[in-house]
Amino acid sequence: MGEAPLPREHVLIILNYKLSDSLVEAIRQKFADVECTIFPATLGSKVPSELFRKATILVTYVNLPEPEDAENLKLVHTFSAGLDHLMNNPILKSGLIPFTTSSGIHGPPIAEWTIMNWLVFARNYNVMYEAQKQHKWDKDTPWMQTNYDQVGKKVGILGYGSIGRQIARVSQAMGMTVYAYTASPRPTPESRHDNGFIVPGTGDPEGTIPVSWHHGTDKSSIHEFLSLGLDHLVVSVPLTPQTTHLLGPEEFALLADKSKNPGIKPYLTNISRGKVLDQDALIEALKSGQLGGAALDVTNPEPLPADHPLWDAPNVQISPHVSGSGREYFWRSLQIVRINLDRKAKGLPLINQYGGKGY
Amino acid sequence: MGEAPLPREHVLIILNYKLSDSLVEAIRQKFADVECTIFPATLGSKVPSELFRKATILVTYVNLPEPEDAENLKLVHTFSAGLDHLMNNPILKSGLIPFTTSSGIHGPPIAEWTIMNWLVFARNYNVMYEAQKQHKWDKDTPWMQTNYDQVGKKVGILGYGSIGRQIARVSQAMGMTVYAYTASPRPTPESRHDNGFIVPGTGDPEGTIPVSWHHGTDKSSIHEFLSLGLDHLVVSVPLTPQTTHLLGPEEFALLADKSKNPGIKPYLTNISRGKVLDQDALIEALKSGQLGGAALDVTNPEPLPADHPLWDAPNVQISPHVSGSGREYFWRSLQIVRINLDRKAKGLPLINQYGGKGY
Repeated sequence: MGEAPLPREHVLIILNYKLSDSLVEAIRQKFADVECTIFPATLGSKVPSELFRKATILVTYVNLPEPEDAENLKLVHTFSAGLDHLMNNPILKSGLIPFTTSSGIHGPPIAEWTIMNWLVFARNYNVMYEAQKQHKWDKDTPWMQTNYDQVGKKVGILGYGSIGRQIARVSQAMGMTVYAYTASPRPTPESRHDNGFIVPGTGDPEGTIPVSWHHGTDKSSIHEFLSLGLDHLVVSVPLTPQTTHLLGPEEFALLADKSKNPGIKPYLTNISRGKVLDQDALIEALKSGQLGGAALDVTNPEPLPADHPLWDAPNVQISPHVSGSGREYFWRSLQIVRINLDRKAKGLPLINQYGGKGY
Repeated sequence: MGEAPLPREHVLIILNYKLSDSLVEAIRQKFADVECTIFPATLGSKVPSELFRKATILVTYVNLPEPEDAENLKLVHTFSAGLDHLMNNPILKSGLIPFTTSSGIHGPPIAEWTIMNWLVFARNYNVMYEAQKQHKWDKDTPWMQTNYDQVGKKVGILGYGSIGRQIARVSQAMGMTVYAYTASPRPTPESRHDNGFIVPGTGDPEGTIPVSWHHGTDKSSIHEFLSLGLDHLVVSVPLTPQTTHLLGPEEFALLADKSKNPGIKPYLTNISRGKVLDQDALIEALKSGQLGGAALDVTNPEPLPADHPLWDAPNVQISPHVSGSGREYFWRSLQIVRINLDRKAKGLPLINQYGGKGY
């Protein structure tokens, strides 16, 4: 009267990037205990219905089945940090199947991109790089007067999620002081925990790094935060109607208020979305010297047109929305699937779950 | 029968760099309780004898009095990390007066220079910078395949002094694993402490960051360390006859040994002196791909001639011996003098002392 073994899960992984053979092999090994199909798809290409129909777990960026091909589907995991791009999908909307996100995997790469930009700016890397191209041992640059370091600098992190937490961790190690800002209040130690996926050895799992926590969705709360005399402001809030043009002329003026920090030249880092800033006001604040500099991985619009004045605004460093990109991306995202398979086997709740009833 | 008040100390600060008025004023305030003379001198210029004769405490880089002008001198503090450049000075050689060094102040700037170079290399900053110059939103670069982060990487620090410790601190925050190497054994927790000046909030004061400590001055000990499968090797040993050409073809081959770390492409950071490396072997190791890249703040010779092949060696980033330079330099060095004045007042031993009997 033994029970029949449970049917094995069938994980369908739809990849929009070409991965190395060794990485594909490592992925197969990671999911050796289940059926695993890896399907390479260019963005927008069609995945065969029969592949979808066999899948019990779908791992994808944008490719989702028609509802009639989702009969066996028990879980969808997306390679993106959020689900905004899938909000109109009928399967997500139905709320019947749990979705999990890749939130948490972006902490290390985007934190490294952020720190890199700060250091490049403060230590005049571009000067060093151009001199090397010319084979010039550059002792003309007054390095003693122009370079500075991050020790003692105050960094305010607007949106203290997994990315902000890893920036905080490295900032603290560099001798900086961290101020956290969240939409909702975090009055208790418990409320400050990071409950999502965390790359091991990184982040601020307990939320103990900030010297103070601030919160609110109203202008006056934000303004209070911007008036702390911050040397750095990191913008890592999601784009919502409330955060659109959150920062404009008034906010840049508050950041630059010398009464809180004489000689301040705040440096702005935007790793959120271009529209969170009033970009014309940003260009003005850079030109006027209100802002000392800015690192922007996001702009409005994207791609930024070649004739846009932002490219040549003073002291700005722009990258084409790639701060989170890297070789570790897919592996880390799949690690979340692996963790959830193991948690399911132990009867534990999923991590990074959105919607659905469990699976 | 009251005692006559002790004569006030007279601090003579000889500055070889032009400091801002506000910094000079801050220095005067820092030493408001003693006589304080700030004398601007270009390197090699002569300081008047009468100035030296009045000084009880001399703060200088290279300018020292003739012995007959040092009658009142009780302490010499140098702006440099070591005393190598003063080893033939009769006052130092006499051993009668304590000298203090600026060891410890270089941790933050040189650690930031190091981390900056790692991140610039791993996150392809130069590509981003060149694209911005061309106003190009660069989606042609396969960022997902070419960028990588530092999480899980193993860094070996050859010479675990104040600079190595701050590199370790930031490395750990980035999710890396740190291996320390020192000349002498450090078997006890006490022996691992940093007893010199530490910039507050930085470094590894207790020596708790490394996952393991290694030591020795013989080749086999070094070779064992280089065989740990390190992703990064940081060279921060002083130049001595023993460390001259410490790293050559044999050592680079050990670093690149794939049996310890498949797919390894070790990255070399030299913040010591150019002569610690066999530079021709370094160029070969970069060309052959044994080394994945190198950040060099020091070369042999300095300045590096314009026609030297090192400038164009693959994946090398060179700066003109300025990794420790920055606005904080003199202030931090003078902080050591301030601390020692206060320690003296309390009857405590000086920090960063070399020679002499106390003062």
